[in-house]
Amino acid sequence: MIVALAGGVGGAKLVDGLARLLAPGELLAVINTGDDFEHLGLQVCPDLDTVMYTLAGLANTETGWGQAGESWHFMQALEGLGGETWFRLGDRDLATHVRRTQLLADGRTLSQVTRLLCDALGVRHRVVPMSDDSVRTVVDTSEGALPFQHYFVQRRCEPVLKGLHFGGAANAQPQSQWLGALRDPGLRAIVICPSNPYLSIEPMLAIPGIREAIQHAPAPVVAVSPIVGGQAIKGPAAKIMRELGYEPSALEVARHYAGLVDALVIDTADAGAAQAIAALGVHPLVTGTVMSTDAHREQLARDLLAFVDGRPRSRP
Amino acid sequence: MIVALAGGVGGAKLVDGLARLLAPGELLAVINTGDDFEHLGLQVCPDLDTVMYTLAGLANTETGWGQAGESWHFMQALEGLGGETWFRLGDRDLATHVRRTQLLADGRTLSQVTRLLCDALGVRHRVVPMSDDSVRTVVDTSEGALPFQHYFVQRRCEPVLKGLHFGGAANAQPQSQWLGALRDPGLRAIVICPSNPYLSIEPMLAIPGIREAIQHAPAPVVAVSPIVGGQAIKGPAAKIMRELGYEPSALEVARHYAGLVDALVIDTADAGAAQAIAALGVHPLVTGTVMSTDAHREQLARDLLAFVDGRPRSRP
Repeated sequence: MIVALAGGVGGAKLVDGLARLLAPGELLAVINTGDDFEHLGLQVCPDLDTVMYTLAGLANTETGWGQAGESWHFMQALEGLGGETWFRLGDRDLATHVRRTQLLADGRTLSQVTRLLCDALGVRHRVVPMSDDSVRTVVDTSEGALPFQHYFVQRRCEPVLKGLHFGGAANAQPQSQWLGALRDPGLRAIVICPSNPYLSIEPMLAIPGIREAIQHAPAPVVAVSPIVGGQAIKGPAAKIMRELGYEPSALEVARHYAGLVDALVIDTADAGAAQAIAALGVHPLVTGTVMSTDAHREQLARDLLAFVDGRPRSRP
Repeated sequence: MIVALAGGVGGAKLVDGLARLLAPGELLAVINTGDDFEHLGLQVCPDLDTVMYTLAGLANTETGWGQAGESWHFMQALEGLGGETWFRLGDRDLATHVRRTQLLADGRTLSQVTRLLCDALGVRHRVVPMSDDSVRTVVDTSEGALPFQHYFVQRRCEPVLKGLHFGGAANAQPQSQWLGALRDPGLRAIVICPSNPYLSIEPMLAIPGIREAIQHAPAPVVAVSPIVGGQAIKGPAAKIMRELGYEPSALEVARHYAGLVDALVIDTADAGAAQAIAALGVHPLVTGTVMSTDAHREQLARDLLAFVDGRPRSRP
């Protein structure tokens, strides 16, 4: 069993790569829900949807969110009615949110709802939220605290980030399959996908017991750097690192994850940082990490699996 | 001021005809909300929407519900996710329900929400729900009690109707502008549109005080028969009349409304019933009532206005 921690786009691509190589029972994708929010009365789970749509082959790879070939008649009509349109919901995508909201209102857990939606879309691998409890990422900025989507979408990450907190995390239970997998002696590896370490992975690690469970898990822990050549492949990771006082680099990602991971996959563009990363006690695995095509996704997953299977865990 | 009581399609057409002749301040369209229901977590008001879309020039005149030129991507996706699709919500129409649901959840009344939606769609005449309180039509059938839309849409009116009741009606307050208009000495007429007398008009009359207010209103009350030549122009009115033991005819409509109305507009096809209708104490006004075109809507409205203005009220 591989446990993969993922946020949106980059995480979804690696989860897809792993899913191309692993049987459904061999992969558990655990997804950040700190970005979830209620919008227009609907429960929206952007990262879960990105992963689900990616695995279902429905994802819009140009935008990194929503479905490919989407139509926007709802949104146009809503605009005409004076509704909020800063968060774009396509006509097909909307069905996901309406269905999820209804199933949650009927008393199902987010895990159950996610399973139902995945089944309906033909996603056979297991995709679970990090928790069935509400965790809400709040971004402390130069303009005050902003709910995540207001910072990320409405304000396009423009306000300077000063810190983050994860409302509800202290009281959230980790999703049960996730916790079970981390403790499973048959665990093959924990993969931290190339998602934003601060916005996508930190909320997951903020759930009580998770950081310890990962540190004590009976399998190697490997992260993939979302920073390549000093830049984020997608999203605000580099900008955020600068605002937090760090140089955006694979080395800083290694520093961020040091103590938690055994190894960090870095791109060949960052091979020069390998020695410094090794000096942190983090094994550097240098390979191509930019997943421009489906073949790249699969190759990175293959490199990862080969690495973890050849490597006993190095942590104490 | 003309007060027009209306349900869906037929009512909407006559309201539109009246709106073409009257200034916004001269018409108050009061709409049945007994058909309203919560569906997919959304507040759906079919008759209000039909009237609003008709006045806005957006109505789908082929189906009698929804918007013209609608797309169905949401519905298709929802079907793929195992959601309920028996009640069809088009992509553009959906925005109305989402916006309404959100505004109601924010604490606005249905009257306020309807005004906001009408303003956004450029509907200048006043369209109000019969009540801001919930009234829910329940159809007693050969198969037991069915919520209205389950009877009407999901079961296509197939179960034999045995009776009707209007949940919540006994405790509902009539919409305030409506009650005010009925008591206004300047009231010009009350028009009961050619809507289903049982399904669309009865719920309105079931609100405490309304029947009396209409009977004592300082203006003539004129109904338009929805039955022409023994058939309903649209919908199940004729079937329902048979199931309730009445012959579907303009004369039976006159019997139904006798005591409440001064006059009944019947189609030229039913001119033969005029004498029998007059014998009931209901003045028969014979004219063309089938509104196949916009010009027909306007002509019927013109005939109605000419009649009411030339006629002092005949009731005690």
